Amino acid sequence: MSVRGEFRSVTADLKALLAPRSVAVIGASEDQSKFGGRVFRMLLKHGYDGAIYPINPNRPELFGLKTYPDIAATPQPADMVVMAIPQPKVRPTIAACAAAGVKGAIIITSKFSDAGPEGAAEEAELVRIARAGDMRLIGPNCLGVISPANRVVLCSSPALDVERLIESPIGFVSQSGALMATIFDRAHGQGIGFSHCVSVGNQADLELCDFVEYLIDDDRTQVICSYVEGIKDPARLIRLADRARERGKPWLMVKAGRTGAGAAAAYSHTASLAGSFRALEAVCRERGIVLMDDTDAMILLAASMARFPGRKVANVAIVTTSGGGGAITADRLTDKGIPLARFQPKTAARLDVVYSPGQANNPVDLGGRREGEAVDIAGATMQAVADDETVDATLFAITTAPSVSGIAANLADAAIPADKPFIFVLQPGRAADKARQELINRGLPFANNLDEAIRALAGWVDWSAWKPAAQASRPAALPDAPAAGTGALGEAETKALLASYGIPVNRGAIAADAAEAARISAGFAYPQVLKIVSSDIVHKSDVGGVVLDLADAAAVEAAAARMAETIATRQPGARIQGYLVQEMAASGIELIVGVNNDPQFGPIVMVGAGGVLVELIEDVALAPAPVSPETARAMLARLKIGKLLGGIRGKGPADIEAAADVIVRASWLAHDLRGSLHEIDINPLIVRGAGQGAVAVDGRALFRTEG
Amino acid sequence: MSVRGEFRSVTADLKALLAPRSVAVIGASEDQSKFGGRVFRMLLKHGYDGAIYPINPNRPELFGLKTYPDIAATPQPADMVVMAIPQPKVRPTIAACAAAGVKGAIIITSKFSDAGPEGAAEEAELVRIARAGDMRLIGPNCLGVISPANRVVLCSSPALDVERLIESPIGFVSQSGALMATIFDRAHGQGIGFSHCVSVGNQADLELCDFVEYLIDDDRTQVICSYVEGIKDPARLIRLADRARERGKPWLMVKAGRTGAGAAAAYSHTASLAGSFRALEAVCRERGIVLMDDTDAMILLAASMARFPGRKVANVAIVTTSGGGGAITADRLTDKGIPLARFQPKTAARLDVVYSPGQANNPVDLGGRREGEAVDIAGATMQAVADDETVDATLFAITTAPSVSGIAANLADAAIPADKPFIFVLQPGRAADKARQELINRGLPFANNLDEAIRALAGWVDWSAWKPAAQASRPAALPDAPAAGTGALGEAETKALLASYGIPVNRGAIAADAAEAARISAGFAYPQVLKIVSSDIVHKSDVGGVVLDLADAAAVEAAAARMAETIATRQPGARIQGYLVQEMAASGIELIVGVNNDPQFGPIVMVGAGGVLVELIEDVALAPAPVSPETARAMLARLKIGKLLGGIRGKGPADIEAAADVIVRASWLAHDLRGSLHEIDINPLIVRGAGQGAVAVDGRALFRTEG
Repeated sequence: MSVRGEFRSVTADLKALLAPRSVAVIGASEDQSKFGGRVFRMLLKHGYDGAIYPINPNRPELFGLKTYPDIAATPQPADMVVMAIPQPKVRPTIAACAAAGVKGAIIITSKFSDAGPEGAAEEAELVRIARAGDMRLIGPNCLGVISPANRVVLCSSPALDVERLIESPIGFVSQSGALMATIFDRAHGQGIGFSHCVSVGNQADLELCDFVEYLIDDDRTQVICSYVEGIKDPARLIRLADRARERGKPWLMVKAGRTGAGAAAAYSHTASLAGSFRALEAVCRERGIVLMDDTDAMILLAASMARFPGRKVANVAIVTTSGGGGAITADRLTDKGIPLARFQPKTAARLDVVYSPGQANNPVDLGGRREGEAVDIAGATMQAVADDETVDATLFAITTAPSVSGIAANLADAAIPADKPFIFVLQPGRAADKARQELINRGLPFANNLDEAIRALAGWVDWSAWKPAAQASRPAALPDAPAAGTGALGEAETKALLASYGIPVNRGAIAADAAEAARISAGFAYPQVLKIVSSDIVHKSDVGGVVLDLADAAAVEAAAARMAETIATRQPGARIQGYLVQEMAASGIELIVGVNNDPQFGPIVMVGAGGVLVELIEDVALAPAPVSPETARAMLARLKIGKLLGGIRGKGPADIEAAADVIVRASWLAHDLRGSLHEIDINPLIVRGAGQGAVAVDGRALFRTEG
Repeated sequence: MSVRGEFRSVTADLKALLAPRSVAVIGASEDQSKFGGRVFRMLLKHGYDGAIYPINPNRPELFGLKTYPDIAATPQPADMVVMAIPQPKVRPTIAACAAAGVKGAIIITSKFSDAGPEGAAEEAELVRIARAGDMRLIGPNCLGVISPANRVVLCSSPALDVERLIESPIGFVSQSGALMATIFDRAHGQGIGFSHCVSVGNQADLELCDFVEYLIDDDRTQVICSYVEGIKDPARLIRLADRARERGKPWLMVKAGRTGAGAAAAYSHTASLAGSFRALEAVCRERGIVLMDDTDAMILLAASMARFPGRKVANVAIVTTSGGGGAITADRLTDKGIPLARFQPKTAARLDVVYSPGQANNPVDLGGRREGEAVDIAGATMQAVADDETVDATLFAITTAPSVSGIAANLADAAIPADKPFIFVLQPGRAADKARQELINRGLPFANNLDEAIRALAGWVDWSAWKPAAQASRPAALPDAPAAGTGALGEAETKALLASYGIPVNRGAIAADAAEAARISAGFAYPQVLKIVSSDIVHKSDVGGVVLDLADAAAVEAAAARMAETIATRQPGARIQGYLVQEMAASGIELIVGVNNDPQFGPIVMVGAGGVLVELIEDVALAPAPVSPETARAMLARLKIGKLLGGIRGKGPADIEAAADVIVRASWLAHDLRGSLHEIDINPLIVRGAGQGAVAVDGRALFRTEG
């Protein structure tokens, strides 16, 4: 048994599996109603040039190929075996493959970990057998592999029933077999192919990241697409994201389970942990993985990026056959925050020659021409638009029109030499089929509906705007070995922890009773606030446990006495540990700063609009901890409330430096205590005017309970 | 010359035009590269059964039909004439038509009001000639009429090159000809037809609402679709919306120019006023017009509603061939706020028989079955889902799968007798073509991409949730004849106007100088606020013109003196009219209440999150003024800040009644002064705790300047 993973990279293994010299098909037959019959025919049809071993004990040969009664009977051990056999037969078959020296097996069969604990145990057994025999597994519960680059098809999907496979430099790894086949089929109809498509199923052995790594290293792949339900190895995802970027290969991802409803659906599907989407999103943002929510848009973007490697997109021009199409397209781009390019004067001047007065602007409507036919001015229009330095990409919104195929061809022929990103949207139905063929003939990707193109452009703009996060360096004077707490910490304990990391908190101390509260009060500045300290009370203000604006020691004493009475009425039995006497923070902008220790991605720091706004609007920015001051400032700038921090309506800017410093320190605190701290929350952090600092006014923390 | 519109409804006119007994085609020929040739052939091809008069001086007959040298030569005046001739020839041809007694003409030709003032003048001349001759016009700059219900095709689009027209009870009026043809073509490919499609072009005579009225009265139309760039007659739109609802006909609308970029594009297209989208949105919400932003989704929804007339949709079930498809679909529904049905126990019990443990829930993944093939359990699954009383509609998310056409057919055959709304999404490409045909054969609408189906369902949910607005009745004791102002009103004048409508304002008075400020101050309660009064100063706080929290008369006097100095430094030359001394309002929740007198729809009242939140988040609700207290409360409930008003985090609810009363009174004020008031703004309106009222703390108004 080799010690895989420590001595050789998975890419070497996968090269053998995805470009096998020999393939065995268990249950190969001529019967097209059976899996074995279909996968066998597809393998032959798409020109696989290695050795094929059909395994069938009942027939001497199939389509002129010699068959073998079982896997042990093949002349050489097959590099790859594919099987879709009844679940109880999988284990003995895998054992036979391992014994025969097979390198890899694709298990299409389901009802393993996808069907409950019993199936999971059986799946673990498969892995054990495979590992002992130095054999790798894809699946179970997967749909196999389609590799146009290697002319290897180990998949029975009806989507493969095409004349020929198209090879494009797009690799695709999918946690859903049906979606892989669906996307393959849809893309094929638009002239888009793949280098390799892999359905990973239950990922018993080989998992999504193994294939992403392979695609990063693969010369035939320029863009990586992935459909993800749950991440098995988050640290590896991060390493691979960095490596993909270094190789200049965009990595696009559709993640199911963004919402609670979607996560529930994904869970019942593959029994994999859907994970926290917010944390994944923060990680992808940091590492340059482009998260999308539509698989069609992902493929369109991949095909467009493959055509224009490394090209950045910010401002977009629209060229359309219809004013109506242009108007809707402009609306939809604006919805997504994608700016329309403002043409340079030279462009307007060139367009003015062929367009009616007032029409020479973005969107350009070919219908607004002075005379002649749209088809005649399409090329010149495109040249003028492509020459405009403010235009990064052009969206062709094509509606039904006379000579629509000529228009598409002329636009394409002008766009291709201009070598600037563009995307065609062909909105008609059959009336645009000839236009579609013109684009397919030129190898140009296109969308059949506007939404897909808009989402693709939005992904491109996101990808283009990516910048590496500044390295987070540890601020001076942080504690070397902070004391981890246990269980839930109250305000006072939390603030002590925050203060130990240099986060300013308002001064205060805990009194045992009203009389001590008065004594403590005298030592601080006024006004003051009095808060109950009780491990039984979660929302202090709900039970009268917070009194603001106390002007002197007598007022503090009276408030403490009243508070005890009120709580005795509102929450009888609540144990009171004391009374927290604090200086009241001056007013300012309220933020929330928190850290959540994601089970997959570790500590993620969050900042958002705080105070009551937390309940009203979702205005948050997240990043993996620790963060640099630059990242903290960028997070603040992404917030809606960032505008307020910058100063509006005669109010000067807030102390953004101080707020960023709190974010940085909180992120290091969470980083240092990541072994035990679940979450910590500062709400509100009051940010005062520039140079006046920020103060944590309330906070809570939750540590792992020992035991 | 008849006095049209006063004596007969437009519907009577349009019946003659859309079901003409005779049609003349100017420039009819056999040449398919010419408009006249194409429209002539389409008319013949699609079985028009009235008299056809080809107008062509150079040929004795065409396709066996006698031709006529000019319009005057036809045996009877044609009910309808269609022309796409050079612009300069349009006027004489229209004159000849009018002279010959033609009832209506479609002018395809462009370069009229769409091309500037000269063209607009020419267009006005066409209308004058037509009116004088009692003839109606469609266009110019339009694409004509496609009426499958009447087998009349007066349109040359290549989209018409189909075997036969499909008739469905969907009427469509479009301000874009290209979009009409595009939508017609796309719908046709999915087996969806229309009763009548009309492209209205520049609307020189007949306009969008004329045809909507016709469709409301038309027995062959059940659902009305419209693509709108600008509204010509807003009052009529409102009347027609009411009438469509009374007849039980949903009216769907895609409005281009929602965003600034879209409006600019729409403007350059049809030279019609894009209008304020927000105001239109408020009117549509009030009147039950369903606003959508995607034309494909509009047609899908129309076809689905036509199949299930009057059916309401709130909770949705997903049935899918793939867990991945189900997860993405669930995410996207959740994004749009559409709830997934929670199955009843009886449903889960029925599904449990055929599904693996833990799989019998929504979304239902046919792949999660215990055994056999998906096609075998599709019917039983659908029956169980359709029998569930919590399910209002089912979304079938179909990915590539073996027997996908059988699955689609079995789902459809179980869904049809269940008679509950459903929408199919066929996500594969060609692999689902047979499945598409199964649906087309059954007359069932479907989408080819998820986004379209999600948007259609969202529209259906909106339509289903519509309720008539309560009648607004005039509150007692409003002024009979309020005094209209002139130009911009400052805070004091605005508050006087508000107070005259019973809107509470904080007490105050204007002092000429610091000494008088002190005297006035003594008459009011403390704390107080001092504000500058100057018509030269827009943002008072920017120049030190607001001082808060003044505790006594001496403080007020000192503040006034300092204020004069500060302003002299910060805005030298600003003329100071005085110093406004006011009681400071107690703290509370800040709203903004405003009214904007929309040039098209009249006064629209708005409420939103006020104070600094106005700059940060767009949290507003609008309705046409005047409004009832019920509507005002519903507007507040729609706001994000509505949650805060309801009471959170130990704070009791705010005085929602008082806030609603201010909205009602502001709406009446704007209604009464609609002839002169442009806009009025209360910001903030401070809403205190329940029973403690609301106070307008600042306000501005803008009246029409006399002259």
